[in-house]
Amino acid sequence: MGTPPPGFLLWPGPVRPYELIKAKRDGHPLPPGSIREFIAAYTRGDVPDYQMSALCMAVVFRGLNAEELGAWTQAMLESGEVLDLSETPGIKVDKHSTGGVGDKVSLSLAPLAAACGVPVPMISGRGLGHTGGTLDKLESIPGFRVDLSVADYRRLVRDVGVCLIGQTATLAPADKKLYALRDVTATVDCLPLIASSIMSKKLAEGIDALVLDVKVGSGAFMKRLEDARALARTMIALGTAMNRKVTALLTDMDQPLGRAVGNALEVVEAVEMLRGRAPEDYTEVTLALTAEMLVLGGKAATPEQARELLQRAVADGSALRKLKEIVQAQGGDPRAIDDYSRLPQARATRDVPAPGDGFVTAIDTEAVGLAAVALGAGRQRVDSLIDPAVGFTLLRKVGEPVKAGEPVVRVHYNNEGPLKDVEERLLAAYSFGAQIPAPRPLVVERLE
Amino acid sequence: MGTPPPGFLLWPGPVRPYELIKAKRDGHPLPPGSIREFIAAYTRGDVPDYQMSALCMAVVFRGLNAEELGAWTQAMLESGEVLDLSETPGIKVDKHSTGGVGDKVSLSLAPLAAACGVPVPMISGRGLGHTGGTLDKLESIPGFRVDLSVADYRRLVRDVGVCLIGQTATLAPADKKLYALRDVTATVDCLPLIASSIMSKKLAEGIDALVLDVKVGSGAFMKRLEDARALARTMIALGTAMNRKVTALLTDMDQPLGRAVGNALEVVEAVEMLRGRAPEDYTEVTLALTAEMLVLGGKAATPEQARELLQRAVADGSALRKLKEIVQAQGGDPRAIDDYSRLPQARATRDVPAPGDGFVTAIDTEAVGLAAVALGAGRQRVDSLIDPAVGFTLLRKVGEPVKAGEPVVRVHYNNEGPLKDVEERLLAAYSFGAQIPAPRPLVVERLE
Repeated sequence: MGTPPPGFLLWPGPVRPYELIKAKRDGHPLPPGSIREFIAAYTRGDVPDYQMSALCMAVVFRGLNAEELGAWTQAMLESGEVLDLSETPGIKVDKHSTGGVGDKVSLSLAPLAAACGVPVPMISGRGLGHTGGTLDKLESIPGFRVDLSVADYRRLVRDVGVCLIGQTATLAPADKKLYALRDVTATVDCLPLIASSIMSKKLAEGIDALVLDVKVGSGAFMKRLEDARALARTMIALGTAMNRKVTALLTDMDQPLGRAVGNALEVVEAVEMLRGRAPEDYTEVTLALTAEMLVLGGKAATPEQARELLQRAVADGSALRKLKEIVQAQGGDPRAIDDYSRLPQARATRDVPAPGDGFVTAIDTEAVGLAAVALGAGRQRVDSLIDPAVGFTLLRKVGEPVKAGEPVVRVHYNNEGPLKDVEERLLAAYSFGAQIPAPRPLVVERLE
Repeated sequence: MGTPPPGFLLWPGPVRPYELIKAKRDGHPLPPGSIREFIAAYTRGDVPDYQMSALCMAVVFRGLNAEELGAWTQAMLESGEVLDLSETPGIKVDKHSTGGVGDKVSLSLAPLAAACGVPVPMISGRGLGHTGGTLDKLESIPGFRVDLSVADYRRLVRDVGVCLIGQTATLAPADKKLYALRDVTATVDCLPLIASSIMSKKLAEGIDALVLDVKVGSGAFMKRLEDARALARTMIALGTAMNRKVTALLTDMDQPLGRAVGNALEVVEAVEMLRGRAPEDYTEVTLALTAEMLVLGGKAATPEQARELLQRAVADGSALRKLKEIVQAQGGDPRAIDDYSRLPQARATRDVPAPGDGFVTAIDTEAVGLAAVALGAGRQRVDSLIDPAVGFTLLRKVGEPVKAGEPVVRVHYNNEGPLKDVEERLLAAYSFGAQIPAPRPLVVERLE
């Protein structure tokens, strides 16, 4: 039988991937310098995927301590460009959500914050699996481009006060490569790896402060409160260690946020929010998160004070004007913001009826997200095509009364093929009962 | 943030590598059919290395239950040819050692067992790291070939009663591929993976029964008795589940076996054993293991009865004649068995002197093995070249008295380059003291 190479000796000398994996497997802390070397070598292609995936699986079981996590995040950050937005005056603040169903918060939050004077450099992702993605929603606005150059990004943050783009190849390339690997090796849901992935990308954007929206519930990545809290605390600690202010809100994702699920439908709901006409839960979560941005950005002393500024930006139309300005600046058709018929429209709708009288007692939110994928609104694989027009209007949400035969969900579709499957999924996702369930708080916890 | 693919659903349908990795990570038992599909797909190249290494690391932490391990082993066995040796009458018995330093047991055991009428189909390995390998030792006999075809292997088992060859590409190719991966991902020392690797190769040889020599001590893969015992029990259970009789001896590897370390030197010691002139520890371990083969092979009712047959095979020269027959049949020069000067000879020797008076109290056996690697007798990497002539004669072993300046180890060398390093390693490997240490049993435990 063969034998592993001789003993654990990391210093001095070049990184030895085998020894790093073995040390983590055996529960020994890794020297920060070795972590940095390992990640740099992986990014260059000098450490193969099969060693990185073995290390990640060992991290799933052994974790990373604060020092290791800091080194890991720093290494991913330093694998690419770290943007300098100092030409834009003020405290640049972004928001990151861990993802959910119907989460169109960024679409209204970014113009709101910018309208109140906080520059928002925001790099977002696409939908995958049951969760939607901000980029897909934005691209349902005709002409809207999310693939701007770093130079344009820098310019728009300065001139418009917001820029909403996708991940570029130059920012945190180690994360991009590692995320693709984790995605196929069951090492995604691992707290330190999640935290380092998010924070390395966010810190590369050029932000000074960050608001985290850590979703918790049946449609969230973190189903349990304690996991969501641990993730929030880890990311706050990482940000603090890198001299960024970070505030986190744990928010409810035990049912979809708002009533619209699907890309163009969500754009409409977001615009409606800036007109003061959106569902209460979505409005409340957006205001709570944006208020934290205003506090971090030095525009308000307290979240309460910030809310007054935000109400005013809705009331005086400045937030809506900011959104149109953004759309215009990023190549989109700003008329679509006033005339929703300029957004992609589904060919037809069909209503899913309630099976009996009573109340909606729960919505399996991940199942709703997967029904949206089945309809074509989301992606099963990173290379799947999506249909921006299709989706759901949730006519009934948790706690609302239903009568047998009355519509519960309106399905907006272009293609009848998946309809039967989608309707079955939606009915299975909804629970009905005779009693109104106890209401859940929208903002579960605030951490800073 | 991306999201893993939807829930765990293994049946029905094709194997989903992601879900298998995730299930093992989360501690769920894997359906045997999925294990078989996964390993077959890996062998074909349809599952990439990075998914297999992640699964192996999850197995390091979660283990495999008996059913999983059986399926895993069966899948590796079935990845290639399973030899049928039924044309050779009798119960075919092999021996497997988990490896050590100075372990030349196979070289005397195989002719002994065959001389007593037990056919021995034996597929061995090469040395790696601190452990030596039977193939390297055999190849130090001029002309000896270990790369025979399967047809020749089958013929020699039938006509000579023994054949000693190396792993072929057709037997358990999954194990060959997987072992190379485990070797670089720190997933080698994992009990179920070790057990399935050994047993899949051994079962592919065409054996009916197997004797396991599980080494325990400072020069063994398993340093602790409980680990060695657990490995032995796992392999016995696996063999039993596949209708093979398996007996295991846990034997001491807390000092090198015998006095010779190095390929040609070990051949000489092995031949001397068949002449009744070898060190007592090596002789005893060889006889104990070969006796178990005779019992499994139906040639003796008890190990004690078997020993009488073995003593006779040494005394009447039949075991030595069998060795010459093997050497001849495999292309080697049988005259080297009588005239050791026909074996590779080192150019010179140098003695390492004792630093003071007293007794040898311990020998760090792995360190002696690594000193042999430094000298050129062993391999640091699978592609390293070795020098068959060089090695050590251990003039003093544990419990033996030393006087300051008297030789403790004789180094046989061809090249002065590594000599200083080798001498330092040897002196560091030896512990000396004023008291004779308590003797350790050679055969620590017997399991069946």
